[in-house]
Amino acid sequence: MPRDPSQLDVTGRPVALRSIDLDVFFRPRTVAVIGASDTPGRPNTAMTRKVRAWSEAAGAAFHPVNPNRTEVDGLPCLPSLADVPGDIDLAVILTGDAVRALEGAIEKKAKFAVIFAAGFAEVGGEGERLQSQVAELIAGSDIHLLGPNTNLNAFETFRDDLPGSAIALITQSGHQGRPIFQGQDLGIAMSHWAPTGNEVDLEFADFAAYFADQPQVGVVAGYIEGFKDGRTLMLAADHAARGGVPIVAVKVGRTDEGRSMAKAHTGHLTGADAVISAVFRQFGVTRVDGLDELLDTSAMLARAKPPRPDASRPLGLADGVCIYAISGGTGAHMADMAAAAGLRLPPLTGETQRQLHEWIPSYLRVSNPVDNGGPPSSDWRGRKILDALVADPNVDLIICPITGALASMSKPLAQDLVDVSKTTDKPICVIWGSPVEDDPAYKDVLLHSQVPMFRTFGNCVRAVRAYFDYHAFRLRYESPFDAVATRPSPAARRARALLEAGRPLSEHKSKQVLAAYGIPVSNDVLVTSGADAARAAEAIGLPVVMKLSSPDLLHKSDLGLVRVGLGTTREVRATYRELVDRAQEAAPDAEIEGVLVSEVVEGGVEAVVGVAHDELFGPTVMVGLGGIFVEVLRDVSFRVPPFGQEEARRMVEELRAYPILSGARGRRPVDVKALVKVIMKVQRLAVDLSGEILELDINPLVLRPRGAVALDALVSCR
Amino acid sequence: MPRDPSQLDVTGRPVALRSIDLDVFFRPRTVAVIGASDTPGRPNTAMTRKVRAWSEAAGAAFHPVNPNRTEVDGLPCLPSLADVPGDIDLAVILTGDAVRALEGAIEKKAKFAVIFAAGFAEVGGEGERLQSQVAELIAGSDIHLLGPNTNLNAFETFRDDLPGSAIALITQSGHQGRPIFQGQDLGIAMSHWAPTGNEVDLEFADFAAYFADQPQVGVVAGYIEGFKDGRTLMLAADHAARGGVPIVAVKVGRTDEGRSMAKAHTGHLTGADAVISAVFRQFGVTRVDGLDELLDTSAMLARAKPPRPDASRPLGLADGVCIYAISGGTGAHMADMAAAAGLRLPPLTGETQRQLHEWIPSYLRVSNPVDNGGPPSSDWRGRKILDALVADPNVDLIICPITGALASMSKPLAQDLVDVSKTTDKPICVIWGSPVEDDPAYKDVLLHSQVPMFRTFGNCVRAVRAYFDYHAFRLRYESPFDAVATRPSPAARRARALLEAGRPLSEHKSKQVLAAYGIPVSNDVLVTSGADAARAAEAIGLPVVMKLSSPDLLHKSDLGLVRVGLGTTREVRATYRELVDRAQEAAPDAEIEGVLVSEVVEGGVEAVVGVAHDELFGPTVMVGLGGIFVEVLRDVSFRVPPFGQEEARRMVEELRAYPILSGARGRRPVDVKALVKVIMKVQRLAVDLSGEILELDINPLVLRPRGAVALDALVSCR
Repeated sequence: MPRDPSQLDVTGRPVALRSIDLDVFFRPRTVAVIGASDTPGRPNTAMTRKVRAWSEAAGAAFHPVNPNRTEVDGLPCLPSLADVPGDIDLAVILTGDAVRALEGAIEKKAKFAVIFAAGFAEVGGEGERLQSQVAELIAGSDIHLLGPNTNLNAFETFRDDLPGSAIALITQSGHQGRPIFQGQDLGIAMSHWAPTGNEVDLEFADFAAYFADQPQVGVVAGYIEGFKDGRTLMLAADHAARGGVPIVAVKVGRTDEGRSMAKAHTGHLTGADAVISAVFRQFGVTRVDGLDELLDTSAMLARAKPPRPDASRPLGLADGVCIYAISGGTGAHMADMAAAAGLRLPPLTGETQRQLHEWIPSYLRVSNPVDNGGPPSSDWRGRKILDALVADPNVDLIICPITGALASMSKPLAQDLVDVSKTTDKPICVIWGSPVEDDPAYKDVLLHSQVPMFRTFGNCVRAVRAYFDYHAFRLRYESPFDAVATRPSPAARRARALLEAGRPLSEHKSKQVLAAYGIPVSNDVLVTSGADAARAAEAIGLPVVMKLSSPDLLHKSDLGLVRVGLGTTREVRATYRELVDRAQEAAPDAEIEGVLVSEVVEGGVEAVVGVAHDELFGPTVMVGLGGIFVEVLRDVSFRVPPFGQEEARRMVEELRAYPILSGARGRRPVDVKALVKVIMKVQRLAVDLSGEILELDINPLVLRPRGAVALDALVSCR
Repeated sequence: MPRDPSQLDVTGRPVALRSIDLDVFFRPRTVAVIGASDTPGRPNTAMTRKVRAWSEAAGAAFHPVNPNRTEVDGLPCLPSLADVPGDIDLAVILTGDAVRALEGAIEKKAKFAVIFAAGFAEVGGEGERLQSQVAELIAGSDIHLLGPNTNLNAFETFRDDLPGSAIALITQSGHQGRPIFQGQDLGIAMSHWAPTGNEVDLEFADFAAYFADQPQVGVVAGYIEGFKDGRTLMLAADHAARGGVPIVAVKVGRTDEGRSMAKAHTGHLTGADAVISAVFRQFGVTRVDGLDELLDTSAMLARAKPPRPDASRPLGLADGVCIYAISGGTGAHMADMAAAAGLRLPPLTGETQRQLHEWIPSYLRVSNPVDNGGPPSSDWRGRKILDALVADPNVDLIICPITGALASMSKPLAQDLVDVSKTTDKPICVIWGSPVEDDPAYKDVLLHSQVPMFRTFGNCVRAVRAYFDYHAFRLRYESPFDAVATRPSPAARRARALLEAGRPLSEHKSKQVLAAYGIPVSNDVLVTSGADAARAAEAIGLPVVMKLSSPDLLHKSDLGLVRVGLGTTREVRATYRELVDRAQEAAPDAEIEGVLVSEVVEGGVEAVVGVAHDELFGPTVMVGLGGIFVEVLRDVSFRVPPFGQEEARRMVEELRAYPILSGARGRRPVDVKALVKVIMKVQRLAVDLSGEILELDINPLVLRPRGAVALDALVSCR
């Protein structure tokens, strides 16, 4: 059942994408170009002609608009958009005063507009003001805008002679999309290109969701410098995931250098990179590094049929990779890279190996990798071998690297690979590993085929890994938006009563907030006298830990305001006094709630669970192991709500230190389920109170063989 | 002063390479082919003709040998090698009975022989026997052999029209070398190709050292499945490092899958992969993953002049990278990848930026990355901009990515880049990021130039990183073979007296071995009665730790044979009895030396230092932090002796957990110098006793703010 785009979750974010009929944009009936020109050499002339050619190819009526002309390239030119007869589907604004032209388009009730001009938010200052003006105009009307600061890529003409599922492209840079567009020269079909520019209105998410719905689209590929909004990105990725259309993206912003240049280019927020990566994992978006990988991985995902489900495999699908080479060295190298990438190289069945040795000399290894030694590729044996590999039940995908061999060998091999690929759903990936491209095997055979083809071992291995990972994701994916929290849980009211706007809470109050959500906290008693402290210690059971509780003294350990292992009531009484004295001395104005007398919790593994606020995604949940793991090794894992329990489990399993939890090397495993439960409760807390809470830090959360318990916590209120 | 190849170090390994005049191999005066043929279609015919063509091009006399023919391709054919008049420099053996032919070559006193045939060690069993036979023949004569299981690549003819420093290639697979050889089609000069096969005699090291001495060679590139010997590899890399010739290598064997296939292919030992990587770092060998990277990185290192030394930089050299693009997106993406690879992108000087804005619109960013927006590339401004970048004192290397732009922009840009590169020593790296190769900018301009050129952002960034890393290595490199230990240190005699062949030593004896080498150990007393224990505890100072000492009970903690925090002599006495009883119960036949009474060492950071035996390199030294760091995170670092103190320091700094030692996040730093000293002493112990000791494990070595102390140790004797 489609979700209602006007419905909001408990954080005030939408639970469905808005609905925009982008068919009208990509297949308009009427197009007007404002600022049309035919003066030779002027940029507007080339742009006018490009939009006209595209409009005519799409069967749309084309209207040049320019008050200074009566004719453009033989077409009558109208002084203003208002003078164009009938409705306008798409108004393309080439004039310098884009804001005024946009007003005209809105008056004319044009359905879509495009502003090419730069000089908006990406330049800061006056540009930002101008961009706000555009945003206001859009908000007050029914028009949808592409841009500003975009280019002509939406008006490219694509080749219609290329078979197979196509790549639809979304880029925030024209140049960066060009090498993907040029994939058509390598026989890779393309269907759309949306250059989203500054995304005042139409954004990555709108196009990604629309493209995923188009039957000819096999993959959505993106070059992205920043997103307009975290939630719409998640919803678009969710939509594509439900439709089974992979998204593959280069996302700039791993480093400060990249982020700052991206900001200068399209003025986007980039968000925290680790959080972006987490969202990509949550919603099955494949992140790649280079444009060559973007093209290769996208083409692989578009061309290769999904693997069979196989519940007996860790990924839940049949993921046996067979490497077939005409050289033992190539096989060894490819096997090494494939295994290092985590691909599974099962041995072929005995029966297949026996069969292969009918055609391959007995001294060559055919278990997997299969080394045919060369000559069998040149004759009838080549096809027999490939048929046998495809027939092997252990083989789910074949990789054949060809490295600059003689054409007498590589051409028949290439032809056999292409021929056999037509007889099977098992993907046959071919690597053309030679640096030269005029070999007939490449130029005449592979380039004209539909086999996933790569120029490097590395790109092939990464793409095959992405292929299995994506389809494993698809198999397990359950949309978290189907059961999203739209109203605060009952715990929220209790928790809210404890919050104090604009300041952090004391440990004691922070733990009460956790307790309201059912997160287990240590057995603590807040006392305000030495006598009460002694009584509390006896009730809890000696020895105890004592900590000063104050919202103004957050670094308790550094200030010496924590004492452990107090074994007698006498010690407890004395310590009460000492802690209070020391606190008053350290910070005479601090509000002292009292002293927390707490049970001693020994053993277990210390974890940290937290909530932070991301500029793009709002509340995000973090987990890591305590101390050096978070602080020095930065071994932390993020998820952005909403996410389900299985996703929380994967979040924990992603930690490098996970083996410590699961019982590596004879250690006693701790209760990972309890940790997952805490994460889910923290998520609920984070979304319920996203308006009031800025940060939450449970540090440590002690994980034991049974159960987990928060020993310290800090809630910071907005 | 050249070192004497017959001199051995204390481990019995050579300290210099043997001297082989490979000039005679590569430029022979006389060549004979045994098993020569001209029967159409026979493999030997093609091989005979290839060797003949190569011989004639080299100006050598060529003699076909075959008892069944009188003539081969018009040349008189002799029945046996003995019948060939005069000396033979190179005997090429094509016959099936290679061993007999080799005997003939030895009788004839041929200087070099080549055996192509496969079926030796790589197939195991009978092949191994055959290979031993060949090895014996070689050892008993002066001949040198290439092969067996090799191919014709040594007899390739190289293009002589390509300028610049050349790549010399060493491969253990013909197919895997082909894409590097084909680099010539991209204008990259090549000078040699040694296909080393099974390396019964001539090995990677012989060729690498020889190639490094040839004036036309700029880089030695290798595809390697395994080394014949660890020491010769180190010596060859040392030789190349002294000569300033980089070695770049693909080394198969990261995974079990790769190792097992490599073994099946050329029968090599692969050694532990982490140890190989460590040796590569010690001796400046650049390790790459793919063949495309091998070609790109080799060409970069061959073509780019070294950077200026600059002591104020972390690497000790001028490493400022400037990114120049015709698109802000391309600049952002490239900056992101470059920064992620650890390249430094300094801002251009204010003066340069001011100047650039004369030609680049003011709204574009020119600080670095420099975005020219496109059009300036098409006219006279393009050259001005590049000249200004080259002149900027902050710029030491320029990267210009070109991604599928219009030829009207990319061609003049490419031409400017090529022209400007001729005016400066600062490397100008160009990325042709378009998937198509028929663009005139690529085909007509870049391919014919000497600029380092790349097909992907990723390969460029990795090659630039390798370039700076290699030259930083060159600047700091001091050969460890100049001051190698040739005789055991005085400590060795004391240590040897403690060893017991074929078994592990008790903790007590193991620590005595350490102490003999001046490695600080905890204050321990071995006692054999409760009364002695109590006296020892008082002398050491209570509380103490007590541990059972036995060479037969090594997992003391697991057996409950360690007690900590014994605070009174009464406890100490009782514990003595308990430990002995428990040990006798657990293992009635165990030899019990007594009980170790030890000081309590608190605080500090636990490290592990060890020695292991590698099949390729012999004794190797390992360091890591204690517990989970080694066991779960496998955060360990290796070095192979001989290495100097600076290398030991780098070994420690390589640990991911290094910040814990150096005082991350307000921690107190520990005494890294003391750790380095322990590593150096352990190295000395490892080489002195390499014949007697199999393994050594100091775990933990406690590192304190001042000093380090071994709390437990285990020496295993051969």
